[in-house]
This record gives sequence, structure tokens and C-alpha cells, in this order.
Amino acid sequence: KVPEHQVAGHLAIDGKLGPLVDDSGRFYKPLQGDGRGNKELAFYESFSSDTRVPDHVRKYFPVCYGSQLLEASNGSGLLHHLVLQDIVSSYRNPSIMDVKIGSRTWYPEASDNYIQKCLEKDRRTTTVSLGFRIAGLQLYEGKESGYWRPGRKEVQSFTVYNVRSILRRFVSSNSSIGNENSDCSFAPSIYGGSAGILVQLLELKAWFEDQTIYHFHSCSLLILFDKESVSKGSAPVPEIKLIDFAHVVEGKGVIDHNFLGGLCSLIKFVSEVLSDSKESSIKDCVESEKPGICTDNGNCQ
Amino acid sequence: KVPEHQVAGHLAIDGKLGPLVDDSGRFYKPLQGDGRGNKELAFYESFSSDTRVPDHVRKYFPVCYGSQLLEASNGSGLLHHLVLQDIVSSYRNPSIMDVKIGSRTWYPEASDNYIQKCLEKDRRTTTVSLGFRIAGLQLYEGKESGYWRPGRKEVQSFTVYNVRSILRRFVSSNSSIGNENSDCSFAPSIYGGSAGILVQLLELKAWFEDQTIYHFHSCSLLILFDKESVSKGSAPVPEIKLIDFAHVVEGKGVIDHNFLGGLCSLIKFVSEVLSDSKESSIKDCVESEKPGICTDNGNCQ
Repeated sequence: KVPEHQVAGHLAIDGKLGPLVDDSGRFYKPLQGDGRGNKELAFYESFSSDTRVPDHVRKYFPVCYGSQLLEASNGSGLLHHLVLQDIVSSYRNPSIMDVKIGSRTWYPEASDNYIQKCLEKDRRTTTVSLGFRIAGLQLYEGKESGYWRPGRKEVQSFTVYNVRSILRRFVSSNSSIGNENSDCSFAPSIYGGSAGILVQLLELKAWFEDQTIYHFHSCSLLILFDKESVSKGSAPVPEIKLIDFAHVVEGKGVIDHNFLGGLCSLIKFVSEVLSDSKESSIKDCVESEKPGICTDNGNCQ
Repeated sequence: KVPEHQVAGHLAIDGKLGPLVDDSGRFYKPLQGDGRGNKELAFYESFSSDTRVPDHVRKYFPVCYGSQLLEASNGSGLLHHLVLQDIVSSYRNPSIMDVKIGSRTWYPEASDNYIQKCLEKDRRTTTVSLGFRIAGLQLYEGKESGYWRPGRKEVQSFTVYNVRSILRRFVSSNSSIGNENSDCSFAPSIYGGSAGILVQLLELKAWFEDQTIYHFHSCSLLILFDKESVSKGSAPVPEIKLIDFAHVVEGKGVIDHNFLGGLCSLIKFVSEVLSDSKESSIKDCVESEKPGICTDNGNCQ
């Protein structure tokens, strides 16, 4: 069946080719015919068996179960599909942000034509200026409003200002009212905390400062959480996952400075939302003139 | 007079326009007429008075003494010069490496023409692949051989392999024999130690992870030291300095992920030379079969 929570990439609707999911928590991604599919499969095979990748890093990648012949979503018959862990299947109402990391999506070995095409898009979006761009998102706003899911055109026109607003809105309880008044009340429990998004990003960063095995071009980092489970303090917890490895090349002894730089830029944005939310809840405590204690996670008691 | 130890940029020789130095430790850089000179002066003025820049970071920049009208080196008459600290004046036989940091030297606001020109050079050199390129160097090899100073053409053709070799050769006592057998015997005292190059690079990195004031495009990081004073343990100590700020633009609340990524790549290279040199001196101790103690800085006793 067609994935319910896919926020970017090719969609398996209207007779088009796209990924499929089943009820057992697996995600089937058609192997694209231009060699990209095989490159991604080759990456997963190499990555799965590479003992240099530590376990605490491996958890940021979907598990790969090899490839399988399946009826394609566009009705074209049997097609090889990459069989992956369906990383959103454990979430009931997942809020998801797909962030394409790096200040360039091209790589030196690519053709001039491909480089110019990527460069043009990198300059038009926030890729060059920010070191990353939002490629898609869905934000669960509650039972009544459902999901906020901006269209592809809207996402592609996001400015630096928009990205900052969305990273705030993403963790706000009043997200549906609009960007300006985001309260960021979920920031301490989603971005912050000992197992929050920021800590995970920092753990990934530490690996990228050292690893020289792979260069991840045009790869996405997903930020996933379920607002309701977060507010109840129950599972599943917020997670980051890397996906889309059709343009991974060998690192050849050099770190992936392109990915690392963009990741550091994202980390700075996330930590700013977090520190702003802490400051504003301290201010709220003071302004309320009640005997209030501000706890470490920024909540007023 | 013409600087003796300039390793990159325009040289004030053969009637050309270039920087000058005096005996009081000042460096006079002609203000280029195309606006770049004024941009660099504006950067120094803004930077000098910006209280957000911490002192421990300020020491990595040359002191600026404003501008001054001076007879130009090309005989064209009086010209405005930027008056800077002559950072090599305290060294007797300085070994210097000029490393242009960043995986791109252009910036989004530049003209298409300028961007294509930079991009072409970034792809031809190690800028894109490594996140930095060596723009020039001189290596003091001793009284007899003097300095090794590769020509501009040679420097521009350096590959990733060459860069790694040179970072080793730079801290070797047997540098004049060639690249293959570099002993890296100075690595612990130049790259390593509590005040060595690596610690300085890491301190600069910590600032770049946080600062969103400036984006440093096409800026150089100099690595400077005097082999003899290092081996005697006397002053001056190895230093890093940032120079060339004609293409600095406002950060507008975003970190300089382009500089940071390249800096992290350089840090990885330097730390590899350092850890290799420690391993090999431990090996030497073991192989010599004498009662040898390997000290923290990698020397055998």
C-alpha cells in the first residue's frame, strides 16, 4: 500500500512509481533504473557489513533487508525494490521534517550538466546559504486540524526566515495559529533532554568529524516525533534518521565536510529554538509574579 | 621594503603592486581599487570594535592599525594602504603554510560570472574535495638548503595526496630528502601539545560552531612556526592566523558552515599526522630494543 506519511520524493499515486509499505513495518523503495537504485542498494550492502561503523551511529540509519521483486506501484509489472525498515510505522501521528543536508548536493565526480542543475537549485533554495534545505514536512496539529503539509512548490521557496519559523512551529502547541506566535512549548521535550533531537544530532556530528568512509551527497535527515507521546512522556521518543543514499561516494580518507558543515548549521538553529524556549519560560515564570520555579527543561512549575 | 616571507598573493616585485613591510613590525597592504580593499578595511573596522568577538579568538587575527597613504610599490604614486601587524616579523626562519579554507570560495551574493570563475578553480584544486586548498608555502629546511618554496603553478596542482604529504613534510626533520620518508619528528611539538597548532585549530573551530556574525569567503589560515625555536622549546611558539578578508560578508544569524566544514577537514588531517607520529615513535622505541619510554609528546627517551 501507499505510505501515508511520505513528505518528500516520488509518491506512488496517480499511477506513478513510488515506494510502498506493508503492515509488518517494511518500506519498499523501487530501484530507479538510471543506476541510482543500484548505487543505493550497494551503499546499504557496504554499510551493513562495515565493522568500522559504531552501533550508536548505526541506529540513525534504517535497517535494510536486501532487495525483492515486487509489483510496481505504476502497474509496470515486477520491479526490484529495496526492502527497508519503515521508520514511521511505530508512530501514530508522526510529525516529520525531511532536511537535505549539505551546502551542495552535487559531487566532483558528477557530469557538468548534473552539477549545474544541482547548483542552480542549491542557490535557489537555502542549501547554499544555510548548508541545508527542508525538502518536505508534515506537522500534526491535533485531532481537529490534522496535518499541516505544505506543497512541494511552497517547500522549495522556503527562505532562511521560513526555516527558522518552521523549526519553532514544529515544536509549538499553538502551531495552527501561524508562525509569528509559536510558543515552542514542546522544544524542551523534543529538541532538548538527554535523548532529544539535539543530543542525537551532536552524536551524529561527532561521527562526521571523524569518519572518512562515506560522503553523503543529497542525503536527507529525518526528524520524527509524535507530539502526543512526547507530551505524555511515553514511547516512541523523538528520533533522527538518515535516508536516501543514491549519491553516496567513497570518502577516500577525507571527512564529509559538506555534510558536517550543514549538520552544524542545523544544530545551531535547533539549539537556538531550545535556548529561546528556555528563556521565554523563565520570563513567563517571572512575569506571572507567582512563586514559580523554572526547571531545567524549561517548564514552569 | 618588500616582505621576505610572503607565500601567496600579489608580490611587490618587478614594478608590480604588492604589500610592503617596515622594521617596526608593520605590514602595509595596498587597498585594491575594485572595492575589495575597502571591503577588507571595513571588515577590520567592524571586527576591531565588535565586542561579541572574544579575546581568545581575536588573537588569531592580525592587529589592524587603520589605513595610511604610502608610495605604492609599483611607482604609481601615493596609495591608501591597510596597516596591519606583520605577523611573521617575530620569526627568524619562518615555515609558513597559507591554507584557503572552505569548499567554495564564492558567495551567493556574487555575480554569476565570478561564481563560475571561482567554482572552476575550486573544482580544479582540492577546495571542493578537501574543503581547503594550500595557496602557498615555504618550509625552512636548514642553513644549507634554506627554504623550500614551490611555485604558484605547482601549488595550484596539489592533489589530496600532495596535501597530506606536505602536512607531514612540514613537520619533519628530514624534509629535504623528499615526501616519502618524512619522519614527522616535529609533529608532537608543532601540531601537538597544549599550545600547539591542533589546540589552536580546535579553539577556532569552537568559535565557528557558534558565531553567526561573519562568513569568511576565500579567507586564508596561516600556519607559522620556526623549526629551530620549536626544537629549542623557545619563543616564538607555533601560531595560526587568519588573513585576507576582502570577501567577508555578514552572517545574518547563520553559522559559516562553509569555513567550519573545511576547518574540520584540516583538523582531521593535522590530527592524523600527529597520531601517526606518536604511533611511529612508540614503534621506534619498541624496535630499538633499548629500555625506552615513550613520553606523551611522542618522543622516545
